[in-house]
Amino acid sequence: MFVHNKKEGHHLKQYTIPALDVSAGVEAKAYVDTLTKPIGSLGKLEEIVITLAEIQGRKQPSINRLGVLVFAADHGIVEEGISAFPQLVTRQMVQNMAVGGAAINVFSRQQQAEFSLVDVGVMGESFSAPVKDRKIRQGSENFLRTEAMTQEEVEKALEIGYEEAMALFEKGVDFLVVGEVGIGNTTTSSAVVAAITGLDPEELVGYGTGISSKQHLHKITVVREALALHQPNSSDGYDVLRKVGGLELAAMVGAMLAAASKRVPIILDGFISTAAACVAETISQGATGYMLLGHQSMEPGHQKAFQYLGKEPILSLSMRLGEGTGAAVAFSIIQSAVLMINEMATFESAGVSGKN
Amino acid sequence: MFVHNKKEGHHLKQYTIPALDVSAGVEAKAYVDTLTKPIGSLGKLEEIVITLAEIQGRKQPSINRLGVLVFAADHGIVEEGISAFPQLVTRQMVQNMAVGGAAINVFSRQQQAEFSLVDVGVMGESFSAPVKDRKIRQGSENFLRTEAMTQEEVEKALEIGYEEAMALFEKGVDFLVVGEVGIGNTTTSSAVVAAITGLDPEELVGYGTGISSKQHLHKITVVREALALHQPNSSDGYDVLRKVGGLELAAMVGAMLAAASKRVPIILDGFISTAAACVAETISQGATGYMLLGHQSMEPGHQKAFQYLGKEPILSLSMRLGEGTGAAVAFSIIQSAVLMINEMATFESAGVSGKN
Repeated sequence: MFVHNKKEGHHLKQYTIPALDVSAGVEAKAYVDTLTKPIGSLGKLEEIVITLAEIQGRKQPSINRLGVLVFAADHGIVEEGISAFPQLVTRQMVQNMAVGGAAINVFSRQQQAEFSLVDVGVMGESFSAPVKDRKIRQGSENFLRTEAMTQEEVEKALEIGYEEAMALFEKGVDFLVVGEVGIGNTTTSSAVVAAITGLDPEELVGYGTGISSKQHLHKITVVREALALHQPNSSDGYDVLRKVGGLELAAMVGAMLAAASKRVPIILDGFISTAAACVAETISQGATGYMLLGHQSMEPGHQKAFQYLGKEPILSLSMRLGEGTGAAVAFSIIQSAVLMINEMATFESAGVSGKN
Repeated sequence: MFVHNKKEGHHLKQYTIPALDVSAGVEAKAYVDTLTKPIGSLGKLEEIVITLAEIQGRKQPSINRLGVLVFAADHGIVEEGISAFPQLVTRQMVQNMAVGGAAINVFSRQQQAEFSLVDVGVMGESFSAPVKDRKIRQGSENFLRTEAMTQEEVEKALEIGYEEAMALFEKGVDFLVVGEVGIGNTTTSSAVVAAITGLDPEELVGYGTGISSKQHLHKITVVREALALHQPNSSDGYDVLRKVGGLELAAMVGAMLAAASKRVPIILDGFISTAAACVAETISQGATGYMLLGHQSMEPGHQKAFQYLGKEPILSLSMRLGEGTGAAVAFSIIQSAVLMINEMATFESAGVSGKN
């Protein structure tokens, strides 16, 4: 159990991130250059496998099983009319995911992933299995009026995220997608990314699930006013989450920190997922070294956020669904890269001549 | 058997390409818009599945099995010193592919594809199984000196390509990657694409498997001089192939025409594959309607060629290996698209509310 202690001297849980194994990356690069293809001709597949070598600490990375871990929560900020869909859709989409009908279910099955769906803060009563009931509260507060949640709730959400990721690792998962469902969470993510990067909300706020231009302008104003009200500390992820975060966002951060601490590669998805990665880095420096970026989302803030983290997307398919879908689709490409280093012949083993 | 007849009145084999089923595409689009996601939020996955609906002529496209059909041949033009690797590497790579050690083998296994490797013109004696012996001649002529091959040989290569594709379709293959191996074939493809598009070779010729800048300039000169010598007819693919083509390139054209005539979707790979597509379109208009572009290669001529065909790549992974590798890797994304339309719930079936 996670023990909360608000009095002075309260210690935050430490998430220790190991250093990347740079020498394993160098060995992987050297080995890839011996495979039967012109040097560098597999482009990003080669870069991916070198990054994985650094993460896993071995020349030839491997994959046992992908885990897809989806956190669901509601957002008080939807009171401000910033979403195209009613709040009830969070609950309905959780039910849809529970029976396998959402896009993330389809792609999880394609990848033979272990799928786990966790309610950390959906409005209304708890769901039945297979949804995991880890509800912290029914939705966050409207952060245009008050702080989104308490410090205690932030820490609890992180711990739940951590525990749920560890539960997957115990089942043999060694590669992780962290997804989400939560009406309003592009507004929350815009506030979180603006708080950490210092960028103006106008550069970050997008159309989410499909709002009007008028709503879009309103959404920018809401985020800007919330930041002016709370003045979150850009280098303190807990402070940012408490003031303008979301419950599923906080749980995602915890899951990412669990993965990074265990050298499990994380595939980032779109804007919400990358916002969580920005927070994770403030809490434990080096965490984002364990993250690959699955795709570039159409949400404008996504590009700003991943550039801030120094990441490049594997795919660019004009997707903007969230849930973890872009990351799950990108897993196929990562698999190609891992198969390449493990299965291709070398010039020497195949008896193929080198360059003139 | 294909009957060749050089005397007047000789009829070229007709490859009849059916019209795309536009109404199936419209139905697919309408159905995709009922799935539980914001409209358009799966981006290119939605576009892919709509294109497949038009190709297969049904609202919900399906995939039984991918075929990867690789043709191998040598190129007389290598005498001119335009390649980084010795000619013998064609033969050695065929042997590597025969035992499963090349990149295309790895990705074919990943996709559970039916893999077929056909020698239509490698230097030296025939290979044993599993390489299919359909050798037309040992390499093409050096097209800087004389025509690359005869009309008879072009037609024979097309027919072999057609037959080998049909053999795969009889095995249940209903999706096709057409790959190649042939030292010198980026030079051949540059000449072919320049001949058809009218673009200057300088815009098309790249570094292939990794030549020097000096060789690169020489390669441009070789292509330019060959075109000046032969003056190929841009609207006659047979003429282009005979004068500046390659045996594997001609076989690829035949395989593509077989697929298009049977409404089997083709995934284009890089420069050589797209050059073959340009030729196929001159022979049977509408053939390229059955083609998706797997990826954008680093070869500069590739972009020019696919823009000429009005195609957009699914992936952009800085690859430049050929063999069919970019197409085979892209198949995963196409599978995601097909699973999406077949497995996702609709708003109605899942009881999810629509937009506000």
